[in-house]
Amino acid sequence: MRMQIVAKIGGSILQAGAPDLNLVNDVKALSATEKLVIVHGGGDEVTQTASRMGKEQVFTVSPEGFRSRYTDKETLEIYVMVMAGRINKEIVAALRSFQVPALGLSGVDGGLLTAERKKRLISIDERGRKRIIDGGYTGKITAANAQLLRLLMENGYLPVVAPLALSPEYEILNVDGDRTAAFLAGALGAEKLVFLTDVKALILDGEPVPRLSMAEAQGRLSSIGPGMITKVYAALEALKMGVKEAIIASGLEPQPITSAATKESGTVITS
Amino acid sequence: MRMQIVAKIGGSILQAGAPDLNLVNDVKALSATEKLVIVHGGGDEVTQTASRMGKEQVFTVSPEGFRSRYTDKETLEIYVMVMAGRINKEIVAALRSFQVPALGLSGVDGGLLTAERKKRLISIDERGRKRIIDGGYTGKITAANAQLLRLLMENGYLPVVAPLALSPEYEILNVDGDRTAAFLAGALGAEKLVFLTDVKALILDGEPVPRLSMAEAQGRLSSIGPGMITKVYAALEALKMGVKEAIIASGLEPQPITSAATKESGTVITS
Repeated sequence: MRMQIVAKIGGSILQAGAPDLNLVNDVKALSATEKLVIVHGGGDEVTQTASRMGKEQVFTVSPEGFRSRYTDKETLEIYVMVMAGRINKEIVAALRSFQVPALGLSGVDGGLLTAERKKRLISIDERGRKRIIDGGYTGKITAANAQLLRLLMENGYLPVVAPLALSPEYEILNVDGDRTAAFLAGALGAEKLVFLTDVKALILDGEPVPRLSMAEAQGRLSSIGPGMITKVYAALEALKMGVKEAIIASGLEPQPITSAATKESGTVITS
Repeated sequence: MRMQIVAKIGGSILQAGAPDLNLVNDVKALSATEKLVIVHGGGDEVTQTASRMGKEQVFTVSPEGFRSRYTDKETLEIYVMVMAGRINKEIVAALRSFQVPALGLSGVDGGLLTAERKKRLISIDERGRKRIIDGGYTGKITAANAQLLRLLMENGYLPVVAPLALSPEYEILNVDGDRTAAFLAGALGAEKLVFLTDVKALILDGEPVPRLSMAEAQGRLSSIGPGMITKVYAALEALKMGVKEAIIASGLEPQPITSAATKESGTVITS
């Protein structure tokens, strides 16, 4: 019985122009024995391209500590170009160059992801005051077409998903990559959800945390910084949808996904 | 028995912010009764975005009269962002807003299109002299994964294809949209290949041409200008691969694809 794994990776699979060999070889080996779906990020690349187009990006932090890109119409267009265009296709090309049967798609395609547009965001300004701002083109995922991913996997393709969604009004929306991975893991009934990061584990009170229950993770949410809180929150969402384990682990290790999914390196959050 | 149709449309499905109702409603009606694959262009949008990024585009004309975008590495990145990112997703979102089950993908995805990188291009300079220039990241399609398109259509999806391909060395390449549509029509054994344009038909000697045989089209190639020669050449490629009819027709009519495919408006080129 093949295990279903959803892995969230960063936006950059290319390092100095060449694919990240650890990651690509691991995806190749793992996808031969397990069912794998990849979701990618790419926020830094969006920010760089936007800057080049004269559109400096604005980020907000919510009272709960979530950091998000303020996505007006112009930022959305750049986000779509970079995420579903450049990054998605670069990852697919890099994987295919190692004979991984990758197929890229975004949440807009085939009804893969539906999201409710956020009407308002609460932002904390530099003086610590709460401000209510327009939600822009960001969304909260409400539905996924898991059957499309199953169809592709059953026919030998490895889906590589860019974090976009369509609203019920058919607007294209920016959705968070970690929460996209979590929702897809839940919708697929995945055994494991892996978040690759640039640190070895979640750090609490100065110590790496090997294992957390849902209740423990929930209780510690307020003490987790903006870099990690979205991953822990997304992990909890996935576990509530029935995923057995969510693992936050380093993407810089040899066999980063395999090691997180089977050797439980990093921080394992369990239901 | 459902007829297989491949339609090449322009890059802009949005007119003043709203979808082109004639085209969207036609795709909706036609896809309910026939098998349809859409290939889109978007050259003007690539040129605009490139200009905004400070990268002015250069076009070359070959001795045979084919016009092409000089695609260096930087232009390729912009081409991928605009074609596979913005335009592909805008078309998919517009179609889905009319309940068409569109799914966007590029030739890079799932091995859909393989192309040989053009090593050199012959260009005619402003004084009419031939110059040999580096081929850049442009390609000539050599293989297609028609089975992937069939899988999607059999499962209720309408494929919307962005004209990119992977080389055997796994480089992402710019491939011509008209010739992408032609190659896919050939690989699918399509009955009809429709090119939507902004004119009603091919004009020769000042007159619209209702019908041409392959031999006639081949014989008149040298008298066709840069705007149309690629479509006629692509039509010939498709007919040689077994497609029954290639039709060049106006995209501005009511029911533009249906009318081209079933009423033979425009210019019909037959084998």
